[in-house]
Amino acid sequence: MSDSGPASTPISALGEFGLIDRITRDFHTWQASTLYGVGDDAAVLDYGGELLTLVSTDLLLEGIHFDLMYTPLKHLGYKAVVVNLSDICAMNGRPTQITVSLGLSSRFPVEAVEEIYAGIRAACDAYQVDLVGGDTTSSKSGLLVSVTAIGQVAREKVTWRRGARPGDLVCITGDLGAAYLGLQLLEREKQVFLSQPDLQPDLEDQKYIVGRQLKPEARVDMIAEFARKELVPTAMIDISDGLASDLLHIAKASGTGVILEEANIPVHEESRLMAFRFQLDPTTCALSGGEDYELLFTVDPGDLEKVRFLPDTYIAGEITEASEGCYLHSAGGHRHLLRAQGWDHFNPEDQGKS
Amino acid sequence: MSDSGPASTPISALGEFGLIDRITRDFHTWQASTLYGVGDDAAVLDYGGELLTLVSTDLLLEGIHFDLMYTPLKHLGYKAVVVNLSDICAMNGRPTQITVSLGLSSRFPVEAVEEIYAGIRAACDAYQVDLVGGDTTSSKSGLLVSVTAIGQVAREKVTWRRGARPGDLVCITGDLGAAYLGLQLLEREKQVFLSQPDLQPDLEDQKYIVGRQLKPEARVDMIAEFARKELVPTAMIDISDGLASDLLHIAKASGTGVILEEANIPVHEESRLMAFRFQLDPTTCALSGGEDYELLFTVDPGDLEKVRFLPDTYIAGEITEASEGCYLHSAGGHRHLLRAQGWDHFNPEDQGKS
Repeated sequence: MSDSGPASTPISALGEFGLIDRITRDFHTWQASTLYGVGDDAAVLDYGGELLTLVSTDLLLEGIHFDLMYTPLKHLGYKAVVVNLSDICAMNGRPTQITVSLGLSSRFPVEAVEEIYAGIRAACDAYQVDLVGGDTTSSKSGLLVSVTAIGQVAREKVTWRRGARPGDLVCITGDLGAAYLGLQLLEREKQVFLSQPDLQPDLEDQKYIVGRQLKPEARVDMIAEFARKELVPTAMIDISDGLASDLLHIAKASGTGVILEEANIPVHEESRLMAFRFQLDPTTCALSGGEDYELLFTVDPGDLEKVRFLPDTYIAGEITEASEGCYLHSAGGHRHLLRAQGWDHFNPEDQGKS
Repeated sequence: MSDSGPASTPISALGEFGLIDRITRDFHTWQASTLYGVGDDAAVLDYGGELLTLVSTDLLLEGIHFDLMYTPLKHLGYKAVVVNLSDICAMNGRPTQITVSLGLSSRFPVEAVEEIYAGIRAACDAYQVDLVGGDTTSSKSGLLVSVTAIGQVAREKVTWRRGARPGDLVCITGDLGAAYLGLQLLEREKQVFLSQPDLQPDLEDQKYIVGRQLKPEARVDMIAEFARKELVPTAMIDISDGLASDLLHIAKASGTGVILEEANIPVHEESRLMAFRFQLDPTTCALSGGEDYELLFTVDPGDLEKVRFLPDTYIAGEITEASEGCYLHSAGGHRHLLRAQGWDHFNPEDQGKS
């Protein structure tokens, strides 16, 4: 390996976001078309047409982001696309194209690659996006999928993380925590299988939470609803790291505080039951679980009537002044400091968590 | 691993291009903005503005595409960007933005990541492109870099692989074979070092060919020259797999034959000397070596005068009717069938070649 100098700081000392801050701070912006680069769900590019172009990219690695013992290859292909489309949605955009690069070790036959692409194609068909490029190469170890998604958004509709203002309502689509609980269940079944290979896992009763982990969806339907209701959120992010971490991203970028109402955080009944079986707090699963790929957005209080009639949307808090800090108002009436406890894949303790 | 059915075809049986054909053939095109997807150097997207948008992506994996024993991390970052910019050039476009995803095992400290990004930044500054996104994640094994490049091209200037016509002149920029010979030299020095660690390698005399391997450049300068001369090539590709393979791509896509003049293939004097020292044929290095990232393009014979005054450009053949086949006319006066012998990373014999 090349000599990288005497200093040797482990990446875990900075964490993912600290590392990104450190390595991107010295970059210039050369192109007038770059409206916004690193730091939101997607880059925003202005090529002079009526619409702005959005770009987002994600890298999924075997053993870090997925475990092939319980992840069918077709689902993996589907999910790799969806998590990128979700980032385009988080800017209030419509995904249009993707590129996909695959790295594969020699243990994967052509039929396995076809399974992955069957999942990619299913996602392309479901979301009407086009696969327009990629790279396929052998790998010395394991499987990796790198997806870049491109989308479009009208100039006046692009939503940033930074647009929330005190008084705005905090809204959440769908329900939270199920993807994390699905992962816990799959991990437990894997351990059972490893110790007693004859036992067949029975996941039939947990289709909902397992499905939320293995086959998440991007909320393009909500973006279409916003357009129908002529609602433009003041800020938006997709919930990939967990509600707490992603809400703090909005508050930090917007320079505000926030108060979140525990009683109004949407958690599915099956998630609640599974949380109790695992002796986990359902709220903690929603706050820190991640991978739900729901939308977290804020709206002007004047838009309350529009939000009220949105399907599958929950008002769960309010943006406050920065000086008021970021808090969870618990169902029991207490105030807890909101902390990002989403997983950090550079933290050895978190490896394999997702 | 998930069950992928009883069939088990090794990927090497299809090769990279066969695999891509097989997995992409069932995809639909949903978006009117997708002018062209998989199959050229970059996808071509039409978002309604004055310019078309180009997208290209490449994945570089440790142990497959680079060896950290002789690849400085800064050079790796630079090269990962350049190979993608080269694809944008091959469409006659101007690169404007990139995204970069990195996977890193825990053996890489923060300082190593900074070295890689120093190279990425050097390329961004040299080519005035903006880093607008990416993903950084830990990896179970080794280093990987996935880059997506975006560019712009005027509608009437986009050059495809498929545009060559019988009678067109075949042109090559720069010189070929040096990157391959640089790799051979680095591989030899690695073996010497592994067997005799006390011997210091002396690469000073071979700066040119080693530089061509470790720090290639994208020919954005030639794209600017074309614009100045008001020359639009009829077809273009960048030489990444080797002259033979890439010229056959143009002939196949255009439905033509081609005759290549060995005497006119540009090979640098230092490459010639090194080829003789390795007992290799310099022409074979140019035809099959790859990684030169020069431009291979065809022009209408009416544009001969424009090409004559292009800097660093060599006329090395002519496009013929498909029925005449694809041949190399050797310096000795013989005709040889042109065969793609670029390396295939799914072929075990080619692994580690680049």
